[in-house]
Amino acid sequence: MAIENLQDLFLFMLGDAYCAEQTIVTKLQGLAEKVQNAQLRTALETHVMETQEHVTRLEQAFAALGATARGDECPGVEGVTEQAEELVQEVEDADTRDAVMLAAAQAIEHYEISRYGTLIAWADELGHPELAKLLQQTLDEEKATDAKLSQLAESRLNRRAAA
Amino acid sequence: MAIENLQDLFLFMLGDAYCAEQTIVTKLQGLAEKVQNAQLRTALETHVMETQEHVTRLEQAFAALGATARGDECPGVEGVTEQAEELVQEVEDADTRDAVMLAAAQAIEHYEISRYGTLIAWADELGHPELAKLLQQTLDEEKATDAKLSQLAESRLNRRAAA
Repeated sequence: MAIENLQDLFLFMLGDAYCAEQTIVTKLQGLAEKVQNAQLRTALETHVMETQEHVTRLEQAFAALGATARGDECPGVEGVTEQAEELVQEVEDADTRDAVMLAAAQAIEHYEISRYGTLIAWADELGHPELAKLLQQTLDEEKATDAKLSQLAESRLNRRAAA
Repeated sequence: MAIENLQDLFLFMLGDAYCAEQTIVTKLQGLAEKVQNAQLRTALETHVMETQEHVTRLEQAFAALGATARGDECPGVEGVTEQAEELVQEVEDADTRDAVMLAAAQAIEHYEISRYGTLIAWADELGHPELAKLLQQTLDEEKATDAKLSQLAESRLNRRAAA
């Protein structure tokens, strides 16, 4: 698809987000199963469930623009995910492996926070306030997940301090 | 390098951040030169200058741990940067091209915000408060840059509304 204007770019970036959310659904579940810390595992599994709803919202956005939902590539999230998969394979210490997964999950959340922030600004700029509102729901959930993961990073620290 | 514990992982992730900062220095300048909007171009060029200081801080962190600074890969930032370079080549409309670059810059900032957040938590966990403090300076600057870019995204919207 040639990108000639902001509407084309918006569709392209919806596709990037669609690829990212699908990558999370397919990969994050596999990573979550290898997590030792129960709170982190629950947080990741809850986020996978939310992500299925995020996929649906993106499909609604594509449909509202008369476009077919597709996301062929999302190099940012694919890069972070592949790096995490390699590290998880390599690292034998369970606590260190959990740290890998917490870091990867937060990198993915921040990628999504940035992408949804951009998509919402463009939706407003293009005169699609209903799409901005739809995507804002996802952005709020991504930020909430990131905040929960930051608390877990903090609790690692407190646990270590108490050890 | 085998990763057996959190200290090894910390060094690995310092390397990821080092690669990311170097990618920004080498690539963001080239992208900034193609920006039409003067405020966005200035924001990106200012950030390239700050980034050179971020590279120096990471070298100080490696040195404090008795390690040589190296960052062989940072797939998250490399993926975002390559995508932006391809889009900038392809998109002919200057305003749409500026939107590409603003989005890419914010994706990169959020990647870094997540990575530095992780590195600071690990530095504290590993008992390196001086490194946590050093990296916090960079995190603060990354957040300030992201806030400035968000303002520019907002001002695009205001300009469009006034047109």
